[in-house]
Amino acid sequence: MRICKRIVGDRAVLAAKRGDGYVDLAVAAPDLPRELGALLRARPDVAAVQRAVDAAPAAALVDPRAPFAPPIADGAKILCLGLNYVDHAAEASYAKPEHPVVFTRFAQSFVGDRTPLEQPSVSTQLDYEAELVVVIGRGGRHIPLASALEHVAGYTLMNDGSVRDYQTRTPQWTLGKNFDRSGALGPDLVTADELPPGARGLALAGRVNGRTVQAANTSDMVFDVATTIAALSVALALEPGDLIAMGTPAGVGHARVPPLYLAPGDTFEVEIERVGVLHNPVAAERTSR
Amino acid sequence: MRICKRIVGDRAVLAAKRGDGYVDLAVAAPDLPRELGALLRARPDVAAVQRAVDAAPAAALVDPRAPFAPPIADGAKILCLGLNYVDHAAEASYAKPEHPVVFTRFAQSFVGDRTPLEQPSVSTQLDYEAELVVVIGRGGRHIPLASALEHVAGYTLMNDGSVRDYQTRTPQWTLGKNFDRSGALGPDLVTADELPPGARGLALAGRVNGRTVQAANTSDMVFDVATTIAALSVALALEPGDLIAMGTPAGVGHARVPPLYLAPGDTFEVEIERVGVLHNPVAAERTSR
Repeated sequence: MRICKRIVGDRAVLAAKRGDGYVDLAVAAPDLPRELGALLRARPDVAAVQRAVDAAPAAALVDPRAPFAPPIADGAKILCLGLNYVDHAAEASYAKPEHPVVFTRFAQSFVGDRTPLEQPSVSTQLDYEAELVVVIGRGGRHIPLASALEHVAGYTLMNDGSVRDYQTRTPQWTLGKNFDRSGALGPDLVTADELPPGARGLALAGRVNGRTVQAANTSDMVFDVATTIAALSVALALEPGDLIAMGTPAGVGHARVPPLYLAPGDTFEVEIERVGVLHNPVAAERTSR
Repeated sequence: MRICKRIVGDRAVLAAKRGDGYVDLAVAAPDLPRELGALLRARPDVAAVQRAVDAAPAAALVDPRAPFAPPIADGAKILCLGLNYVDHAAEASYAKPEHPVVFTRFAQSFVGDRTPLEQPSVSTQLDYEAELVVVIGRGGRHIPLASALEHVAGYTLMNDGSVRDYQTRTPQWTLGKNFDRSGALGPDLVTADELPPGARGLALAGRVNGRTVQAANTSDMVFDVATTIAALSVALALEPGDLIAMGTPAGVGHARVPPLYLAPGDTFEVEIERVGVLHNPVAAERTSR
């Protein structure tokens, strides 16, 4: 099953894919929680929900013009791995890490699919990073490696958009990773049953204006999904809806000669085999706030 | 006015200080929002609320045994400055920063006043950091320096408890700063009208088992409150309830010879003049989760 969040009028609705469209889950399965974290906590039977989606009347279809919002649960933690592909660690002048390198992003740093990324008014160094994202379904702390994948609800896509001058001018990357609307997430949460265990062995690509600039395989990660869940949960309890971005492979704009940064008018696409495509244009920051 | 969050039965209530006790705001001022972020968004008149608190009946007093919860608004961002006192940057072997060094903490990494900090089962390097915390009252992005303090609702205290081996074993500090219940926050949000502008000129101390191990003044910060608000809001919109921890001065346990880490049975206190005292015992991690 593929679940997304759409903006209909002024509210966010959860919708499930059916053919080329999406069915409003509140219509197809009215007993399910309407918020993503609550839905994941309820741990509904995926096959039963899919049957309800398939049986829903045409009136349950979401207007295809409804914007995508990032599929982020209320209050979710967003943990991100850095340097988790050997070739990217090398291009960034770091050694292959011995432990997962973790930073965080706030929800407001993301836009949904097909929504413009914003080039900040203060920087011309908006860079792209194509990534696989894990969505936690069952929480826990000190999760054993052997059962770690049982805690995964599904996967989605991220452009871990990074403002490089702000990222690298201090020892901590936080600000450069958290410009408002500098990254993208979505479109769909693809439930784990549709993918190989740990989403291993999937081709991953990043494209600027249609040109492939990142090409790798999710099997190339230094720390795989299960290892990462086990390692993070040593420190903190994971909760349903929490996101773990698994890092990006080589090919980012900052490491190119000359550098390749995103500017208004560009597009960036993340594609992962069987997960989908996340497509965003780039616009200048909306300056009036 | 001083506002705290207390656990009464199984719910969190906001309460305001009156004499030696606290008055339940839901009783004293029933029209006010019951959630901290919503309360700050409503921007109530502090003097009028204080009058309502002063006039409340004795039945509005919160049971003094009710535990303190950290005064964190739902969904609040928690931004923390590192290396923001010159003497601490030096003891940590860093240069005085040219820009604010920012990391983040999740709400679940904090306990409230008088609640045990947890020494992780995997580390004996739980360290303390006494800090001033800014609570944002009015949101905004690209906040000008000259009006930055108008965005402050008040101040509170933090022990930015840090698990040093996990903090320093990768280039990013995130995991070592985010062990569950490794830090403390509170007890009170003290409204800005009760303190000097930017909370400057206040003595700050950290004490292990009653012995002073950190002693400084909030005027010693590299980046003051207004400068920090302006700098952070270049990247992201601040929202009512967001917290900014202003960093710690010299004297942390990790920099001592021999090191001084917190262990079960110890206590740590943060005290800032006119803001209050945050007191926490230390216990072993509750291993069953």
